[in-house]
Amino acid sequence: MDQSISPLRINSERFRTNLETLAAIGATPDGGVHRPALSEAHLQARRWFLDQARQAGLDARVDGAGNHSAVLRCGPAGGATLLLGSHLDSVPYGGRFDGALGVVAALEVLQVVKEQGLWLKAHLEAVDFTDEEGHFVNFLGSLALSGRLEPEHVRNPRGGRDRFQQALGRAGLSASSLFSAGRDPAAVAGYLELHIEQGARLVEADMQMGVVTGIVGIRSFKIRFIGRADHAGTTPMGRRLDAAQGAGAFTLAARERVMRDFPGCVVNVGNMEFEPGAFNVVPQTVTVALEFRADDDDELDEMEASLLQQASIEAQRFGLGLETAFLDSTPPARMNDTVRDAFAQASKLLGLRHTFLPSGAGHDAQCLAQICPAGMIFVPSVGGFSHSAKEFTEWEDCVNGANALLHAALILAR
Amino acid sequence: MDQSISPLRINSERFRTNLETLAAIGATPDGGVHRPALSEAHLQARRWFLDQARQAGLDARVDGAGNHSAVLRCGPAGGATLLLGSHLDSVPYGGRFDGALGVVAALEVLQVVKEQGLWLKAHLEAVDFTDEEGHFVNFLGSLALSGRLEPEHVRNPRGGRDRFQQALGRAGLSASSLFSAGRDPAAVAGYLELHIEQGARLVEADMQMGVVTGIVGIRSFKIRFIGRADHAGTTPMGRRLDAAQGAGAFTLAARERVMRDFPGCVVNVGNMEFEPGAFNVVPQTVTVALEFRADDDDELDEMEASLLQQASIEAQRFGLGLETAFLDSTPPARMNDTVRDAFAQASKLLGLRHTFLPSGAGHDAQCLAQICPAGMIFVPSVGGFSHSAKEFTEWEDCVNGANALLHAALILAR
Repeated sequence: MDQSISPLRINSERFRTNLETLAAIGATPDGGVHRPALSEAHLQARRWFLDQARQAGLDARVDGAGNHSAVLRCGPAGGATLLLGSHLDSVPYGGRFDGALGVVAALEVLQVVKEQGLWLKAHLEAVDFTDEEGHFVNFLGSLALSGRLEPEHVRNPRGGRDRFQQALGRAGLSASSLFSAGRDPAAVAGYLELHIEQGARLVEADMQMGVVTGIVGIRSFKIRFIGRADHAGTTPMGRRLDAAQGAGAFTLAARERVMRDFPGCVVNVGNMEFEPGAFNVVPQTVTVALEFRADDDDELDEMEASLLQQASIEAQRFGLGLETAFLDSTPPARMNDTVRDAFAQASKLLGLRHTFLPSGAGHDAQCLAQICPAGMIFVPSVGGFSHSAKEFTEWEDCVNGANALLHAALILAR
Repeated sequence: MDQSISPLRINSERFRTNLETLAAIGATPDGGVHRPALSEAHLQARRWFLDQARQAGLDARVDGAGNHSAVLRCGPAGGATLLLGSHLDSVPYGGRFDGALGVVAALEVLQVVKEQGLWLKAHLEAVDFTDEEGHFVNFLGSLALSGRLEPEHVRNPRGGRDRFQQALGRAGLSASSLFSAGRDPAAVAGYLELHIEQGARLVEADMQMGVVTGIVGIRSFKIRFIGRADHAGTTPMGRRLDAAQGAGAFTLAARERVMRDFPGCVVNVGNMEFEPGAFNVVPQTVTVALEFRADDDDELDEMEASLLQQASIEAQRFGLGLETAFLDSTPPARMNDTVRDAFAQASKLLGLRHTFLPSGAGHDAQCLAQICPAGMIFVPSVGGFSHSAKEFTEWEDCVNGANALLHAALILAR
């Protein structure tokens, strides 16, 4: 590497204007954005994205799952396409960086390559995937594009089937069109994604970039503790079968177990539902929403066994019945070694301090990893805030991320 | 007491027919009743009650709070009235004994006294109080009759003001008529109530009757633990401010504290509300519905201080904020000594095994205790079931209770 030659850079002024214009679509007063998938604000953001692509002389493309793409034909005729992307939808009242950064950066990379007149081994495509945040169906767009969407994925969308049908209709999609979006894996050269970290590890380690080693697997269960709905005034304490005791003890013990036996892994009790849920009735049932994550399937198996055993211990301790229902599972996805190396090389080329780390959050890259070499980079999140208007990434880090995306694409496709 | 003379008895055949006829009104397939206050089934039960009263030659009376009465003029002109009563409303899908037993027994007592042509120091009145179970307003009828109903009691009825207004309208009542039901305390000689125990203490002690020493006071709070809504995948366990940990630990510790420091008292965590309540978000806030009961005001004060201190300890332990909101308080009500003695004497006269015990549940008697000598007896609840179709009292115990009510009334009013 000749240090005297400055590497190619994105147009940071255009990049910033685009990010800021996008952040105004669905903007909330506290600086965040509210763009749930297929909402009016989300559809507006997607129209803006295609307009930008067309104005830049790129091809615009929308598939049957609503994935929006800008395409640069810079490879051999009939050649494969290297995908760069992320998503323009947000969680309700979320932040302006999550997803948007990766889409705007991908568009910027295509514009720079086009302006430079570079000819590569693959075409480039900047993709905005549909419903990454799972407003209706987790990773709907990337599942569909990867040919991994199954009818059961769309059978019970969050919010109900009617709302989902209506939203698809608004976007010009249908339940059947979703299944037409699958790509031939031979036509996909790879997938690269830039995203904010959504945690504070990079800031704490004083790193400018994180090359993702893999995306954790996620399993979720409903754990129901079953007691007896007695009168909370007339039933002596020692005679109660109080489902809240089992649920409370499990919540504490699950955290302690994971911190002790599964360092680096995480567990969450995100909700409880009490029945009958009255001040003056001993809780008959408490249903606990349990989720846990690890970056390795064996570890997920061990966590599952350990947590279900703990639920059983707590139920017995308080004389309660127990029902456990498996809800959902996302397998861990290793990122491709060649893509990791390309990101690390790009970081070095740009003189950035980078580290390697797993992703605790799910990303579209885990779906793409099933059909092509896929990889991600993270840029630092100040304070580690995520899914919140407080989410923030320094402007310099946004630019670094986009430049690393550009160079990783060039390294892989040149 | 001459053992050779058998004491006066109620007409157990008529009593049984009445109880069974009443149990058919609003009957549920599992043997319980569904008669929420001012529902069609409840109003039908009340019409049936007045019909029975009229057919027995008693006066029928309905006051501005909807309290339904049968009156026997068996005292001196202008003399006070001894009230006997309970309630015909039920909790949703409740049992057939809670409330109904006391009303039917009171009617039976009046019929026996009338048939015997007894002349007493007081008139007798069998009262069915409105909404004892608090479908809209806890103890609405007995509060109103005791002159203790305040505008704030009816400002936020459960289920909302519109539903309450409509229900009052169906029953021929209005928000203003409620306040016209207050009685002159000088006109009320006392109040006696027969009720099922709603617990298993009498059965366990092999007792046939419980003379109530007092009705516990109740206080309720909302306790909110405040954490931070972080991403449940990307936030390391040690960095979370997880409101569920505080709520879970409090639930366990509250039970332990009350069992250790306040024997005989009770505490209940009847509900929790999680925000945002998602599998994949660390709970930002968990709001705990807390209720506790004791039969003495000093003890309630001590429990309140102890439980709020515990909440504060758990919040600190997990780095959480804490907000506590006082919701409601019902003071404990001591039962009148003369009425207790009358019940104990009646039990002896009937050759029944009785004990003395506090009531862990609230009853109309606690309102009446504020304006006259009031007392209650309990008969055994098989299995201690309450507010459930499983509620059951042996027929013989129902009859014993009605006979004890008769003799206590005679002892007090002869």
